[in-house]
Amino acid sequence: MTDLGKRLGDVYRIIDNNRDMYIQWLQELCRIPSVAAQNRSMKEAAEQVRRYLEALAQGPGAAGSTVKVIPTSGFPVVYGEFPGKSPRTLLFYNHYDVQPEDPVELWHYPPFGAEIHDGVIYARGVADNKGNLVARIAAVHALQQALGELPLRVKFVVEGEEEIGSLHLPEFCQNHPELLKADGCIWEFGYKDADGRLQVSLGVKGMLYVELICRGASQDLHSANAAIVPNPAWRLVQALNTLKDATTGRVLIEGFYDDVEPPTEEDEALLAQMAYSEEAMKERLKIRAFVNGVTGQDLKRQLVFSPTCNICGLTSGYQGEGTKTVLPSVARAKLDFRLVPRQDPHKILAQLKEHLRKHGYDDIEVIEWGMEHPARTRPDATIVRSVVEMAEKVYGHVPNVQPSSAGTGPMYEVCHRFGTPAVSVGVGHFASNTHAPNENIRVEDFVQGIKMIAAVMLDFAERDL
Amino acid sequence: MTDLGKRLGDVYRIIDNNRDMYIQWLQELCRIPSVAAQNRSMKEAAEQVRRYLEALAQGPGAAGSTVKVIPTSGFPVVYGEFPGKSPRTLLFYNHYDVQPEDPVELWHYPPFGAEIHDGVIYARGVADNKGNLVARIAAVHALQQALGELPLRVKFVVEGEEEIGSLHLPEFCQNHPELLKADGCIWEFGYKDADGRLQVSLGVKGMLYVELICRGASQDLHSANAAIVPNPAWRLVQALNTLKDATTGRVLIEGFYDDVEPPTEEDEALLAQMAYSEEAMKERLKIRAFVNGVTGQDLKRQLVFSPTCNICGLTSGYQGEGTKTVLPSVARAKLDFRLVPRQDPHKILAQLKEHLRKHGYDDIEVIEWGMEHPARTRPDATIVRSVVEMAEKVYGHVPNVQPSSAGTGPMYEVCHRFGTPAVSVGVGHFASNTHAPNENIRVEDFVQGIKMIAAVMLDFAERDL
Repeated sequence: MTDLGKRLGDVYRIIDNNRDMYIQWLQELCRIPSVAAQNRSMKEAAEQVRRYLEALAQGPGAAGSTVKVIPTSGFPVVYGEFPGKSPRTLLFYNHYDVQPEDPVELWHYPPFGAEIHDGVIYARGVADNKGNLVARIAAVHALQQALGELPLRVKFVVEGEEEIGSLHLPEFCQNHPELLKADGCIWEFGYKDADGRLQVSLGVKGMLYVELICRGASQDLHSANAAIVPNPAWRLVQALNTLKDATTGRVLIEGFYDDVEPPTEEDEALLAQMAYSEEAMKERLKIRAFVNGVTGQDLKRQLVFSPTCNICGLTSGYQGEGTKTVLPSVARAKLDFRLVPRQDPHKILAQLKEHLRKHGYDDIEVIEWGMEHPARTRPDATIVRSVVEMAEKVYGHVPNVQPSSAGTGPMYEVCHRFGTPAVSVGVGHFASNTHAPNENIRVEDFVQGIKMIAAVMLDFAERDL
Repeated sequence: MTDLGKRLGDVYRIIDNNRDMYIQWLQELCRIPSVAAQNRSMKEAAEQVRRYLEALAQGPGAAGSTVKVIPTSGFPVVYGEFPGKSPRTLLFYNHYDVQPEDPVELWHYPPFGAEIHDGVIYARGVADNKGNLVARIAAVHALQQALGELPLRVKFVVEGEEEIGSLHLPEFCQNHPELLKADGCIWEFGYKDADGRLQVSLGVKGMLYVELICRGASQDLHSANAAIVPNPAWRLVQALNTLKDATTGRVLIEGFYDDVEPPTEEDEALLAQMAYSEEAMKERLKIRAFVNGVTGQDLKRQLVFSPTCNICGLTSGYQGEGTKTVLPSVARAKLDFRLVPRQDPHKILAQLKEHLRKHGYDDIEVIEWGMEHPARTRPDATIVRSVVEMAEKVYGHVPNVQPSSAGTGPMYEVCHRFGTPAVSVGVGHFASNTHAPNENIRVEDFVQGIKMIAAVMLDFAERDL
């Protein structure tokens, strides 16, 4: 047995012995409804995370640790730094905020109950992102207990605004560059695919989130007036329709694709080995086909390398049961654009506004809700190699490496600005229902995820950069 | 003083003496939240109307009256019939149901409080249609008190489903043709225009109310999936966009205009004398222009003679505060089509479905919520002449006669099927906010409206048919 193998065995035993406690930590955190968009229980959640980190700072070999709640212009960042045997530094980026739980009537268990049924924990935020945060805290705890000290320096950056576009994280990153200095970063999320294979992803898409507001008469009217009074719902529908080609799905905003980097040969090779369980997804989602009817390599390329223009929400007029004959006074659409390297959200926003102006819709108000730059790590980065090799050890199979997640996060601000390679790996699975009703993770994935993080800490500590 | 003048004077005195009681009746009825779309307090409202009519049946000269609540497959019809001196029969068509009160946060007073502020009564349904119903009940009461008997036979048909498209009224009308037999009908609604001039209208538009439902994945998803999973909100927007020309507003459903009767010379003459206070409306509604920039005769023609395709409501995905990055699983639109003679709602529904099919949207579910035929009365009908002449007497000015209202109702089923001419006149005003927050009528309009109905009953009783 190698030295790494022996130490891993010790850590695994600690993890198995403490599993009930770690699960309890997770349930505790999930029961705090920290919905950033609605400013619910945010302080309470930050405080709870601080308490977990404080406990680690009191653990074996943790002298010289730092734990603090650092204010921003928005919700604070919980920061923790723990010294280790090697000066090598590993950064964990996580967030303590969650998405709103609605539509709440579609949940089978209370969204903030963190109930366990048949080995599955159900809670808003359990997959995105509290399960991963607690798994990483638990891994640090287990290593302290098993080895009496950490193998390397660890930093936790746990923000409270990820689900609302990390509005004040750029400010935090620019004000505290020293806190972000690291040799590699484990990004917040990660999932197993439909075949049970671990996914490892090397980047995130960028984001522009806007709300379009179209106004008509100063109040709702009897719809008899529709013959002569402008209807903002129609106007919004017509404006939205100019944004996207109905047949191809291509975004029609001028310049939108100008800065898109096409996939390289290396990207195509990664895509080729990346698994995507098409039939399982279609079955689970009850859809007949994917967008544009794509399959295989094309499907994967579209998922990973295509920017999107998505309607997150539409609202206007009467939406209750039955009928109301009303001419609405306002119509709103929430849109998210997922951006790929090197699209710039500021530039896309300007292009969107120019598009509306050119099509005669300059009366439509555009509210900017969030912006994030895309980011991508090279597959040969040390932290990536460490994660891929440890995944084989912990999970017993070669992980499914994706050039980028289709999701978004502030990876550019936290990592790429400082040249830190980042990789995503975590405790979710393909049916974790993130951002949707019945969000969940499997208890065994959580426990395995703790082991995985502990293994990466041990391995990355000694690997050549 | 003429005989009519003397009798009118007697009735007016009774009305003035009883005004507080009549206002109280109205408040009492408005405090019952009889929202048909939500099945709230419907029985209670029908019962209350029955009690008012029962009281009339006990009044002077009312022996032989009939009052009953007649069941339908939906909400019941309250029916009252009261004999009078002349066999001439006048039918009042009204309804005891109201529109939903949302958005409730925009009301300045409780929607079911019926509070009076500065001579204005605020309540959902006070203008549409409880004010008119109570004014007509009060007119019958006052005539009984003043003259010891009614001048003519009166019938009340008070339904409970007008605001949800009078779903079961056709069934009622076909089952009880004898109850609808009359020489003229005073239709449910009526308003003063922005200049304070009484509007009299001679018809209603028809209606097709549908809901379009577009489904995507079986559940809401994280919007990262938007690159490959179809978004039903986009699909709905694209389908809606095929229904209407964005520039001209013309409905693009094939055959939609085929059966539209263009205005006759007589219609154009009526339009020419019909007043529409463009500047007052634009000011009140805070709009810069009417649809297609029309003004003058074109505006009036468009209001009265154009069919519409209106979006009453849009709903999909996240509609709360801030952001949620979601790929919705369903998107819905509620649409009403206002139809003009001789458009047939059944035919329009078939054309709509065929349109969706031809454009590749046959996956979109079409729920049929209501259908009504358009109807129009000739301006030389006796009941019209009676109303116009009595309006001059009661209001002191020539009323504003419109060939048709832009609104809708089951006039075809209640009147035109049986050859009964119908005319609309009532107690609302141009800012009554029907179907909108802060619905209201002015107390003085209500009292004047009682006098108007009493005058028409006296006059119509003796006028040559």
